[in-house]
Amino acid sequence: MQRGILYPSRKVFVQSSASVVGGHEMKGPLASCFDIHDDKDEFGADTWEKSESEMQRLALNCAISKLGIKDTDIGALFAGDLLNQCAGSNFGLLEFDIPYLGLYGACSTAAEGLVIATLVSGSGYMDRCACVSSSHNCAAERQFRYPIEYGGQRTPTSQWTVTGSGAFIIGKDDIICEGDNQSGAVEISDVMIGRTLDYGITDANNMGAAMAPAAADTLRRYFYESGREPESFGLIVTGDLGFEGSKILRELMKTEGYPIYANHVDCGLLIYNREEQDKHAGGSGCGCSAVTVASYIIDLLRCGKVQDALFVGTGALMSPTSTNQGGSIPGIGHLVHFISHKRDV
Amino acid sequence: MQRGILYPSRKVFVQSSASVVGGHEMKGPLASCFDIHDDKDEFGADTWEKSESEMQRLALNCAISKLGIKDTDIGALFAGDLLNQCAGSNFGLLEFDIPYLGLYGACSTAAEGLVIATLVSGSGYMDRCACVSSSHNCAAERQFRYPIEYGGQRTPTSQWTVTGSGAFIIGKDDIICEGDNQSGAVEISDVMIGRTLDYGITDANNMGAAMAPAAADTLRRYFYESGREPESFGLIVTGDLGFEGSKILRELMKTEGYPIYANHVDCGLLIYNREEQDKHAGGSGCGCSAVTVASYIIDLLRCGKVQDALFVGTGALMSPTSTNQGGSIPGIGHLVHFISHKRDV
Repeated sequence: MQRGILYPSRKVFVQSSASVVGGHEMKGPLASCFDIHDDKDEFGADTWEKSESEMQRLALNCAISKLGIKDTDIGALFAGDLLNQCAGSNFGLLEFDIPYLGLYGACSTAAEGLVIATLVSGSGYMDRCACVSSSHNCAAERQFRYPIEYGGQRTPTSQWTVTGSGAFIIGKDDIICEGDNQSGAVEISDVMIGRTLDYGITDANNMGAAMAPAAADTLRRYFYESGREPESFGLIVTGDLGFEGSKILRELMKTEGYPIYANHVDCGLLIYNREEQDKHAGGSGCGCSAVTVASYIIDLLRCGKVQDALFVGTGALMSPTSTNQGGSIPGIGHLVHFISHKRDV
Repeated sequence: MQRGILYPSRKVFVQSSASVVGGHEMKGPLASCFDIHDDKDEFGADTWEKSESEMQRLALNCAISKLGIKDTDIGALFAGDLLNQCAGSNFGLLEFDIPYLGLYGACSTAAEGLVIATLVSGSGYMDRCACVSSSHNCAAERQFRYPIEYGGQRTPTSQWTVTGSGAFIIGKDDIICEGDNQSGAVEISDVMIGRTLDYGITDANNMGAAMAPAAADTLRRYFYESGREPESFGLIVTGDLGFEGSKILRELMKTEGYPIYANHVDCGLLIYNREEQDKHAGGSGCGCSAVTVASYIIDLLRCGKVQDALFVGTGALMSPTSTNQGGSIPGIGHLVHFISHKRDV
């Protein structure tokens, strides 16, 4: 049975990607990489949930515009977010005339969308699909913890939900974005679906610890099956393990015989400045890896600074209700393997 | 662009299916079709949410047992439910060692899972995948409306969330279930992804009306592209439009020039006895179409009483928060085309 690395039947490329972020993200080190921002996190909407929807609309719209295509040129849309019933995606993407499949992978949704889009586009069902995901700090805080006005204290291991949305357009051709004929192409050569793992972590303020074993499981399976060593990859990018989770992952991988100290980065640690921004253990949320990969990581691959990257989108699959009922926090990690190609110009 | 009917590259079959239901469903006309039930809706768990998870575990376990396979014989698992953060699936399916992708399609989740499983299995990535979905009346009532102990009055157009979980195992071969060498095989010949449509319905107690236009859109596109007339299908099965939504769908389809009066059935109307059970406009929820299709509809196809069936799983993509903020209720409908084959015995 094919339970491991899945290779698309034909080549699949990231045709375009776009990122939309809020004010805190624009104060971080990746500010110059993002396409659209609103320092007030509002995006013209009168509730935080509607702001999140608007970010998704802007992100997909931007990715579509870069390619100079229409929404009807896209065969399917895979999207999800952290809001209950994935309302961010359901409402934000309403105006696009694209067949729609909703996803729930918690913070792994960007990777989950890329995995499914690669499988569907890579087997010839359609020439092009899109995936979008998002999170909004204020919408997430009041849904999962307390409204921000409450001013609740955060524990040192807690992470900061990123306000942002990332969109990707995935297709069979390497299409040159408007005004861009210099950069290279980014292929998705293979993907791996994660397994849900529960190591009994019950501290909802330490998501990194809950997700690290799942990321380790996916990476271990990937290195074993591919026969490649961790250091043979340009970058190993995890979604939002943050400071605690990254430390745990690196230790776990060392124990497994696949040390990743040399080339591991985590989107939750890349997006904020740990010294200057009061974000505790780092960024998190569906938007964290979505905007970091859609901007900084894809940029590195496109310009050839990184030859290939393994992206493991991590998710914590609990709910406030399950936590209140004493449940533990299962984690998951889906893997996407990006390869940089020099374009023939 | 391929935005319409999607045909798997190789044949795909429903290898097995299983259904788990509660007490109200066992008092309905389909009682004899279901595999497992608990009249108390508890399934040995101490909270309704855990009961829902346990139903999913039982359903997938039952579908696996029927085939006499192991969980590791399944390449991927697509699952979702109505609980916030899809906690029913996340926790219920933890014990299975199967790569996992979470879905959110509201009540369309059973159809969404079948669509993705068909695409992934039908293109050779893996020989077999599974999909599971569920809803639990008591868990859904307290999450979406009021705890049942509150005794709130229900409006005549409101529907009754089904307590149940349905599981399907989809694969490239037509495998004979243990102890069954008489019945036929059920193929999934093609699928169609729905588009999210918003007709401005804001009454959260009239989901049928919100979902009917989306079901009509998918059916209209399907009949147009396939060139087939509605009456050429054995059955046209919608997920959970109920009494109100079914009436609207039939009128819409007549206006479109594709009347479906002759062979349309709705899982929300099949599952309860409208005269004897106080279920108002019928059943609803992820579990409604999941258990009805996994049992009654698949049985009809397997024994050849129905030659083929179009199943349109319908979903209402709103959240309590969006409704409280004055939002309307977007609907969606994903289509799965089942074909009955006589088995060579």
